[in-house]
Amino acid sequence: MRGPRTPRNVKSGLGFGPTVHVTHLECGLCGTRHDADKLHTVCEKCGGSLLARYDLGRIAREHTPGELESGPNNLWRFAPLLPVGEERHRYTLGEGSTPLLEVPDLVRELPVNQVWVKEEGLNPTGSFKARGLCVAVAKNVELGAKAFAIPTAGNAGTAMSAYAARAGAAAHVFVPEDAPAKILMTLSQLGAHVTKVKGLISDAGKACADFVKANPGVMDVSTLKEPYRAEGKKTMGLELALHFGWEAPDVVVYPTGGGTGIVGIEKAFRELNLLGWTKDQMPRLVTVQAEGCAPVVTAFDEGRETCDFWTGATTKAAGLRVPKPFADRLVLRALRASKGTAVRVSESEIDQGCARLARTGIQASPEGGAAWAGFEKLVGTGWIRRDDRVVVFNTGSALAY
Amino acid sequence: MRGPRTPRNVKSGLGFGPTVHVTHLECGLCGTRHDADKLHTVCEKCGGSLLARYDLGRIAREHTPGELESGPNNLWRFAPLLPVGEERHRYTLGEGSTPLLEVPDLVRELPVNQVWVKEEGLNPTGSFKARGLCVAVAKNVELGAKAFAIPTAGNAGTAMSAYAARAGAAAHVFVPEDAPAKILMTLSQLGAHVTKVKGLISDAGKACADFVKANPGVMDVSTLKEPYRAEGKKTMGLELALHFGWEAPDVVVYPTGGGTGIVGIEKAFRELNLLGWTKDQMPRLVTVQAEGCAPVVTAFDEGRETCDFWTGATTKAAGLRVPKPFADRLVLRALRASKGTAVRVSESEIDQGCARLARTGIQASPEGGAAWAGFEKLVGTGWIRRDDRVVVFNTGSALAY
Repeated sequence: MRGPRTPRNVKSGLGFGPTVHVTHLECGLCGTRHDADKLHTVCEKCGGSLLARYDLGRIAREHTPGELESGPNNLWRFAPLLPVGEERHRYTLGEGSTPLLEVPDLVRELPVNQVWVKEEGLNPTGSFKARGLCVAVAKNVELGAKAFAIPTAGNAGTAMSAYAARAGAAAHVFVPEDAPAKILMTLSQLGAHVTKVKGLISDAGKACADFVKANPGVMDVSTLKEPYRAEGKKTMGLELALHFGWEAPDVVVYPTGGGTGIVGIEKAFRELNLLGWTKDQMPRLVTVQAEGCAPVVTAFDEGRETCDFWTGATTKAAGLRVPKPFADRLVLRALRASKGTAVRVSESEIDQGCARLARTGIQASPEGGAAWAGFEKLVGTGWIRRDDRVVVFNTGSALAY
Repeated sequence: MRGPRTPRNVKSGLGFGPTVHVTHLECGLCGTRHDADKLHTVCEKCGGSLLARYDLGRIAREHTPGELESGPNNLWRFAPLLPVGEERHRYTLGEGSTPLLEVPDLVRELPVNQVWVKEEGLNPTGSFKARGLCVAVAKNVELGAKAFAIPTAGNAGTAMSAYAARAGAAAHVFVPEDAPAKILMTLSQLGAHVTKVKGLISDAGKACADFVKANPGVMDVSTLKEPYRAEGKKTMGLELALHFGWEAPDVVVYPTGGGTGIVGIEKAFRELNLLGWTKDQMPRLVTVQAEGCAPVVTAFDEGRETCDFWTGATTKAAGLRVPKPFADRLVLRALRASKGTAVRVSESEIDQGCARLARTGIQASPEGGAAWAGFEKLVGTGWIRRDDRVVVFNTGSALAY
């Protein structure tokens, strides 16, 4: 008698069987409902980002937090709270379940007691982008998509290409012409069709949009221009809740480019609160941006609801080089609703942040270095208090640079 | 009332409390016993590799497989079978618990039904080296070491430097002069002292040995020249047993440079069999090497017990560029005792192996590409049979290259 065909749960294995708890899609701005059984990009009425809505009552009746704890060791652990119905479309490369690292050596001399680094660099393709693109590719393939397009400074493109390859779909990637050679090589190895575009990521975005318009069969998975990347990012918040025994940490410090991280983490805790799995908890969400490209920080400081386009964006943290996040309203709303804040850091502070993390063995991306620098700044001003439980996100590995 | 100070187990968190089940160290060649409470390098009598021996009867009485399954989501999940006694010395960067990926798209047309890729690229610093150096640094620091030295083609050095940083110890790294600039940058960021050496990894090894001789406080953690890296590698075998519900897969295909992977996986199943947690099971262990450096394959084919030094070693898979593994006897013995085999692949087969894995979204290192190529070769010859459950190791991420 042979053992089970399918190995057990360490980053693989058993799932939940089919679950389809998504009821509809809702525009994050005007609230218009959209059918969740069809492919969608943005709101048909106002062009806003669509968000997936779930039958939370049914989820609460049919599932338990304990069940998620013993689920597979990847983001499909949270399948009941994700939009993909069929197990065969839950493509995995081992994303999620990333470590929450204690960093006692880094905070010994700071007036703060409880700090962790969420190490997203251990995701496939080396960054948190894997989460959003895992779910976006899976759900859109389930709904019939056979090709994807994305503008990218690097990590989003490799993540999309990896999951498209995994799902047997085509990948079209639009990169600024100064994209690192290494990224281009990785993209080509993963079988992506790569187009170099003059200018910034926003220009690559326009080229991508044109391409998709001319090729109706291709699904645009730009940040928050389709509903499901945010669902994947949501798993960062769900994992934090699980880490902390179904509570929220007090503060989450997140390096912000396009903003799905912030939007996803807020959505996670909103849904968990409605489920009753967490008790009316929400971390104070902090956006960190680079001085050379800080549209969200500026709008936050000035009390505005949208960002101006940031002219001449420049920072070594390529993931932060987003001159105007498409979902600026949602990001700013999440920062304010959570009683969070926004802070900018200089290029040399980014370097120092990376160096600090390296001192405890963490190979952080510049975005992660920025987050750490922003954290130290907020400790310095007293905004982060001694007893706050703080999670700082390293969104990617230095290896991916 | 606040929640628990320490978050839960997703790649962090709760351990087992103190466990010290190591009884002594034993020479793998001549069997001489050594005291496990002191720092050791190799056998004082014959110079062979020392292996940790445990009180397996006591482990079987005090622990259960189920306990390991619910342990922390890193390699300290296996703490009762590892040498580090005190929790404070169980330094973690989130190593281990790597995904076991199904690859249906790659085997559809091959006469083999059950194949998985063990994705070691998701370890900290991007390779399986993290496991061995995590445990080696932890145990030697527990025994009083404050500085480490290693010769490296890249990944072992970054792994050692990361864990040394984590443990607050000094790192001295000896690299061949053609080491990639990226590796050098990473090493320097992690605070390592780097020395470039003319020639191959074997020359770097000599320089490292000289340095250690001249600096008695520095611990040499070269492959199998101290007892504990093999213990870390052992966790790859322990994880396989856990994946397969405390059974062994039938075949493990492993790209072999220094050989601790093979030795560690064999040791895992030997110990599990003695514990009774697996029932007299051992996977057939397969070494894959590059045509340009295949000392183990040659010795295996010729029925010899040791390897000759391979002159003019050359292959793009830097981790396989080991002209004569220090523990050649142990590696060859493990291959034969497990009814395994050894196979060599060309540089173009390595490229094809990487390309195949990329087609399903896996960014493999050249070593991983070599393993896949070796696997396909053994399917072609019929050595791997249709119903074999096969695990092919991708030992590192392409990102680390």
